[in-house]
Amino acid sequence: MKRIAVVLAAAAGIVIDMPPAPAPADEVATPIFGITIPAGYRDWRLIAVAHEEGKLTDLRAILGNDIAVEAARLGTRPFPDGTIIARLAWSYDPLEESSEAFGQPQSFVAGAPKNGVQFMVKDARKYAATGGWGFAQFNDGKPANEAVHNACFACHEIVKDRDFIFNRYAP
Amino acid sequence: MKRIAVVLAAAAGIVIDMPPAPAPADEVATPIFGITIPAGYRDWRLIAVAHEEGKLTDLRAILGNDIAVEAARLGTRPFPDGTIIARLAWSYDPLEESSEAFGQPQSFVAGAPKNGVQFMVKDARKYAATGGWGFAQFNDGKPANEAVHNACFACHEIVKDRDFIFNRYAP
Repeated sequence: MKRIAVVLAAAAGIVIDMPPAPAPADEVATPIFGITIPAGYRDWRLIAVAHEEGKLTDLRAILGNDIAVEAARLGTRPFPDGTIIARLAWSYDPLEESSEAFGQPQSFVAGAPKNGVQFMVKDARKYAATGGWGFAQFNDGKPANEAVHNACFACHEIVKDRDFIFNRYAP
Repeated sequence: MKRIAVVLAAAAGIVIDMPPAPAPADEVATPIFGITIPAGYRDWRLIAVAHEEGKLTDLRAILGNDIAVEAARLGTRPFPDGTIIARLAWSYDPLEESSEAFGQPQSFVAGAPKNGVQFMVKDARKYAATGGWGFAQFNDGKPANEAVHNACFACHEIVKDRDFIFNRYAP
């Protein structure tokens, strides 16, 4: 109701001086970068898919908001401010029905969520110290700790010449 | 211009008797099921991701139109008429930058399109002989041959108890 009142007030050009409402539990911001989970990100369009081996062993999808997908398709670099890229991941499970049909492991499918959900948020000024990107990881909807967030940029620097983005758009 | 005229005529409630325009090259229908490539399918939302080994060896994504995604999320079975599920696939490429950083193969990413694009279209009456599903495969935008389309249903019958759908929604 308060939100509706504010929207109506905003629409009418009225400025209301109101303290920010406390964030719900699943909207707590990440350390260092202060990022919250973007609303509706699971509905975003697909940029790419990947499989990680080793300690991660997952299947993953890269989704993007409209700014991200547009830039990914056009090859716009650096990505514009407002870009948000989401990395979802799931366990890497053999599909039994398929293995039976083929007589050998054939299909591996996404199972339960794994390795958290990650976001990269572009704001060239706010995140100037880390290539213009803010990094966020949420495990079960809760922000990962500061050590996790301190490690992001060092790895993404490997692909500095691609604006710090590992993925490529899958057409 | 003809299309605009028809739309305007339709909006005005005028019926025009006109032969169907010839379909452009990339809109030719598949054998058996008569399916054309659905417009804008690359913008559809993500249902699942998978990796195929063996002769296929690819990374793939399952996208769905709104009816498909809604049903996939709610677990609605059988899928309602109007459901369209798209299967995209790409080559399975090691990411060199990642292998260097980890000192071993670590990340595999989607490369060039591979193994065509496939669609399953639900119409319980029209496709009653094949579980209510029409099957379509397009290679480089062109329908695959009849033999390819004859093989689809036999394999999908393995998962008859899941309404002939191998994939599961990745949350």
